[in-house]
Amino acid sequence: MSWLVLILLIALGGIIWFIMRQRSKEPTLSANLEQDVDSFLNEAGQMVEPAIKELLSVHAGRKFPEAMLYQIDTGGKRLRPALVFLSCRAVGGQDQAALYAAAAVEILHNYSLIIDDMIDHGQVRRGLPTTWKKWGHSMAQCFGVHYAAAIFEGALKTPAPLKATSILTETLQVLLEGEMLDILQERAGRETEALVVQRRYRRVSMNDYLEMASKKTAKLLAASCQLGAVCAHASEAEQQALIEYGYNLGMAFQVRDDILDMFGEEKGFGKKIGKDIEERKGGNAVILFALEELKDLELDRILHQGDLGEADIKRAIEIISQTEAREKAIKLCRDYTDRAKNALKGLPAGPDRDLLVDLVDYLMTRHK
Amino acid sequence: MSWLVLILLIALGGIIWFIMRQRSKEPTLSANLEQDVDSFLNEAGQMVEPAIKELLSVHAGRKFPEAMLYQIDTGGKRLRPALVFLSCRAVGGQDQAALYAAAAVEILHNYSLIIDDMIDHGQVRRGLPTTWKKWGHSMAQCFGVHYAAAIFEGALKTPAPLKATSILTETLQVLLEGEMLDILQERAGRETEALVVQRRYRRVSMNDYLEMASKKTAKLLAASCQLGAVCAHASEAEQQALIEYGYNLGMAFQVRDDILDMFGEEKGFGKKIGKDIEERKGGNAVILFALEELKDLELDRILHQGDLGEADIKRAIEIISQTEAREKAIKLCRDYTDRAKNALKGLPAGPDRDLLVDLVDYLMTRHK
Repeated sequence: MSWLVLILLIALGGIIWFIMRQRSKEPTLSANLEQDVDSFLNEAGQMVEPAIKELLSVHAGRKFPEAMLYQIDTGGKRLRPALVFLSCRAVGGQDQAALYAAAAVEILHNYSLIIDDMIDHGQVRRGLPTTWKKWGHSMAQCFGVHYAAAIFEGALKTPAPLKATSILTETLQVLLEGEMLDILQERAGRETEALVVQRRYRRVSMNDYLEMASKKTAKLLAASCQLGAVCAHASEAEQQALIEYGYNLGMAFQVRDDILDMFGEEKGFGKKIGKDIEERKGGNAVILFALEELKDLELDRILHQGDLGEADIKRAIEIISQTEAREKAIKLCRDYTDRAKNALKGLPAGPDRDLLVDLVDYLMTRHK
Repeated sequence: MSWLVLILLIALGGIIWFIMRQRSKEPTLSANLEQDVDSFLNEAGQMVEPAIKELLSVHAGRKFPEAMLYQIDTGGKRLRPALVFLSCRAVGGQDQAALYAAAAVEILHNYSLIIDDMIDHGQVRRGLPTTWKKWGHSMAQCFGVHYAAAIFEGALKTPAPLKATSILTETLQVLLEGEMLDILQERAGRETEALVVQRRYRRVSMNDYLEMASKKTAKLLAASCQLGAVCAHASEAEQQALIEYGYNLGMAFQVRDDILDMFGEEKGFGKKIGKDIEERKGGNAVILFALEELKDLELDRILHQGDLGEADIKRAIEIISQTEAREKAIKLCRDYTDRAKNALKGLPAGPDRDLLVDLVDYLMTRHK
């Protein structure tokens, strides 16, 4: 009898090992599914565009339309509007009902990018010069205010203006808190800024990172899904399911971004590879896993250096490559995508819910 | 008969001359009236303070309260909240109804100051280091976003949340347009910013200036008055009367600010005297009147100089002092204050309306 138990245990161990191994591998995607999601993202992008332009073209927006619309015209996947539309559809709403909420979240996202690029002195985004780099700091500041106002102009045009305003206000505040945490989790830099130097995290734990990611990234994706549901006058339970979906998708998305920052291809990614190392970010899942695993302190030393050259960044990525950090990050990503998909079980089955599931896999195989 | 007409004409001319002379003199204020307005401004300031703190203390605001509240704590007259309360009272509303609208406009005002000081590299405001100077640029950017969100958090807590959101959104957009015009009306500077250099006004006319002042300053004062009326569920006519009052008060306020910038006392004013000259602003009523009157081009040359020293600023003020620019600006101010007072005729008579009238005179004799 005991040899039977032994064989079963060995078989079970093998299965677990196989699953774990699969889970730490990059997911792949069927061509069909990729096409479905691609065409939906395109559709969502085309639907939302006129509403975005409308909201950004009042008052000051009329002055230099090419400059004012530049940030939004640099592109991006329009993922957040797509989430609004799809969430609205998944609970039985019409696209038209979700239109201005979709526009508002994309404007909010781009507002945060204008500010983020000024804070990080980022010169390139989506393969193009950033807004401040292109138009100068004074105008970028002004454009930021214009985008901020346009968010709420959009909220007012939704079928649930009060609830939408409330969600967007809170989202903006949480996102900003995430941005502050991101800055405070840097290992060095901003030496002239007393408050940052003083309040910087001495050590960034995985929990600190997760708090930052949830506020800086996941909150807006959760809010996008919630807004879609709200515009369709969904039930509280449906709203909660979509919030949970969006939140977990957002967490996975951030971890995936951390992986691409280190191991992506610059051309497809649109950002500089190793940018997080250059900015000496403690708040990157791959860096955190690597630091946890490493016994020698070379990586830590590089991240605390005053000025980083290309050779340092290359060396840091090399060190990280020798650890299991990448696999661990992929696994963390997968945990979140599982939770995202599970959350959808509370919604009515159908092609819209299926597309929400597919979107998860699609985003996890993206290279940009 | 003809000598009688002549005498009458001479007498009439004398009266007109006397009135014109009076109108170009600085107004004075009785001690009683000053005390009344002072004590009302104090009262309004104390009423609004807890609501402001509440709106700025959610989420990220809890992190570094001393830094996050710094901008609002640098003081200021709390003129805009006072206008909200007083407008609300003047149409029969209770202070409580106006509370969050009062907080929102003050936060909006301070949001614009955070951004304005970054744009102008201003180091001192209200006699204290500006927010970016004190806490660093990254944090000032974050605080800006937090203030922007708090405005709409406030709007939601008013008795007319949709209307309030709509007024505040529009105000923010118009104010930002005014800020852009202000930048584009500078005579020199920002040489690294292509868009500014390219689109800068070649010549600033009085109309250009008035457009800028109406958007940058008058709009927010008009909106404050309108919000007070809206919170009291005032009639459309009452709202219009208060908007017109606020608008004209705002225009007078800006012209007065232009005068103080040149001829104020640094200690009381809290800003650097000659700051507008240092920033080579075309958008200053006194500078515009002086340029109009002067035949030689020395002032124009100074305003187009690459870098201005203290001697240049002093010389510019000296040149301006030799013209009638100051008197003309005082007269322009008076025209606007007359219109502001006239607008109030549409409101029910009473102590609140009287206080609105007194506030005009009070502001026009301020030295800070």
